[in-house]
Amino acid sequence: MKPITLYTVGTPNGKKVSIFLEELKAAYPDFEYEVYAIDFSKNEQKEECHALTPSSTFLKHSPNGRIPAIYDPNHDHSVFETAAILLWLEKKYDPEHKFSWGSDEPNGEKLRSQALQWIFWVHGGVGVSAAAANHFVRYAPEQIQYGKDRYINETKRLYGVLEKHLEGRDWLVGEGKGKYSIADCNAYPWLHLHAWAGVPHSDVGPNVRNYILRNWERPAVRKGSLTAASPPSSTDCVLSTGRFLTKLLESDFEAKYADEINKKAEDAKKWVQKGMKDDAAKK
Amino acid sequence: MKPITLYTVGTPNGKKVSIFLEELKAAYPDFEYEVYAIDFSKNEQKEECHALTPSSTFLKHSPNGRIPAIYDPNHDHSVFETAAILLWLEKKYDPEHKFSWGSDEPNGEKLRSQALQWIFWVHGGVGVSAAAANHFVRYAPEQIQYGKDRYINETKRLYGVLEKHLEGRDWLVGEGKGKYSIADCNAYPWLHLHAWAGVPHSDVGPNVRNYILRNWERPAVRKGSLTAASPPSSTDCVLSTGRFLTKLLESDFEAKYADEINKKAEDAKKWVQKGMKDDAAKK
Repeated sequence: MKPITLYTVGTPNGKKVSIFLEELKAAYPDFEYEVYAIDFSKNEQKEECHALTPSSTFLKHSPNGRIPAIYDPNHDHSVFETAAILLWLEKKYDPEHKFSWGSDEPNGEKLRSQALQWIFWVHGGVGVSAAAANHFVRYAPEQIQYGKDRYINETKRLYGVLEKHLEGRDWLVGEGKGKYSIADCNAYPWLHLHAWAGVPHSDVGPNVRNYILRNWERPAVRKGSLTAASPPSSTDCVLSTGRFLTKLLESDFEAKYADEINKKAEDAKKWVQKGMKDDAAKK
Repeated sequence: MKPITLYTVGTPNGKKVSIFLEELKAAYPDFEYEVYAIDFSKNEQKEECHALTPSSTFLKHSPNGRIPAIYDPNHDHSVFETAAILLWLEKKYDPEHKFSWGSDEPNGEKLRSQALQWIFWVHGGVGVSAAAANHFVRYAPEQIQYGKDRYINETKRLYGVLEKHLEGRDWLVGEGKGKYSIADCNAYPWLHLHAWAGVPHSDVGPNVRNYILRNWERPAVRKGSLTAASPPSSTDCVLSTGRFLTKLLESDFEAKYADEINKKAEDAKKWVQKGMKDDAAKK
């Protein structure tokens, strides 16, 4: 096979896909991919004319102008939207259903449906809500308490739903030991960032905490988390690489790493606010 | 077959599923469903103990405590999250791929992947952004300009992405005439509410406007939009039933229907703010 091209940045959405690509690489020795790290500071993700290859622009792969996107040269097919990418890769490159369930397995269709339910739950729930909390807590140019409360509270509620669901389960789908699947690739990158979203340690229950660590124990999760760490300058930051993931689970995280957190927030604020201005100027 | 039970409210997310159920009913004469209209004013969607049937509670079908959800008695399977419901119903009750594509069709897998991309784009994009705009413009107890601007601008941007994508297309997936599919069931119920989300008429391009009307011309879309109209008291409101959809596309909608809009916003505000208080009290 020819390698899949991944266009990405080391954000939580980016990591969903780079983690799954690493899982596929570990599971299938022939599987290959290459990374094109998009530069947010240059607004490459919104460029119509920026040629990633002589024959393509980023918007051709991702009409929404957001990362991640992939190009699959083996089928001449581009995919945008994180979860749609996971589902394409699983369909085409996981023939043994190592990360999903075949229709002919006992309960295969129901388990697949469960995976989809939790994928959509993360996509429109935890992902969106934590991202909005990040914005109001860390990036917004104004301090707006109502915005912070609204999205921190909703993120907390969603962590509560997950805490209950994970009771007696190792992974999102199935009971007991279950099976690690694309639903977990899709969930983990948002979950370990609760501290960043302003959700205090005391609001993350033991089931969710153990689930985060269980993900982190997988070599492909560690490796995939480091792909295209962003912004590149802060690869040593506790937040951007997840190298110090267990620290994020410490109850005094916010106090202990205040300097690093503030530095990271300042860095991120710059390109978030630049992106907002560029969008506004386009109109 | 036994009828599918739909637990719902006449919100945009609710309508995605009731529209597809009506489409299936029109396409397959044996297909049946029944509706259990959840009462938001009684907070039924968040009840642990509320018995919908002698053996079940709403949270058993929808652990997230949000509508819509279905119970499929033919496979003893519950599904929550709108798009996961569409995908389950399509898998089980659309054997002729009238609303999707089979893997063995020419380009079937790519078209299916395109449908998923636009389903996720709506799920984490237009749906979320328009809902947040609705909140800041119509329901929030405080007037917060930054929140309004942020979500109205993002909703406008997303309408712009769609306007471009629909150039030369009748439906979301495929080129030219294409084929009406679950991707359209999933998109339409948010799109025709741009005026409610504070996106002015001038920011909705002709491709999107024609797309909205093209959906509305389908009898199942009209019928499905009326299922569980909410709140029940305002079934005559231009907004809740979509009966006056074309009015929503008039450039002077906001001015012309100011009284009805304000009444609807006041009604909705009541149960939105009640829900917020109940959530806060639970902690």
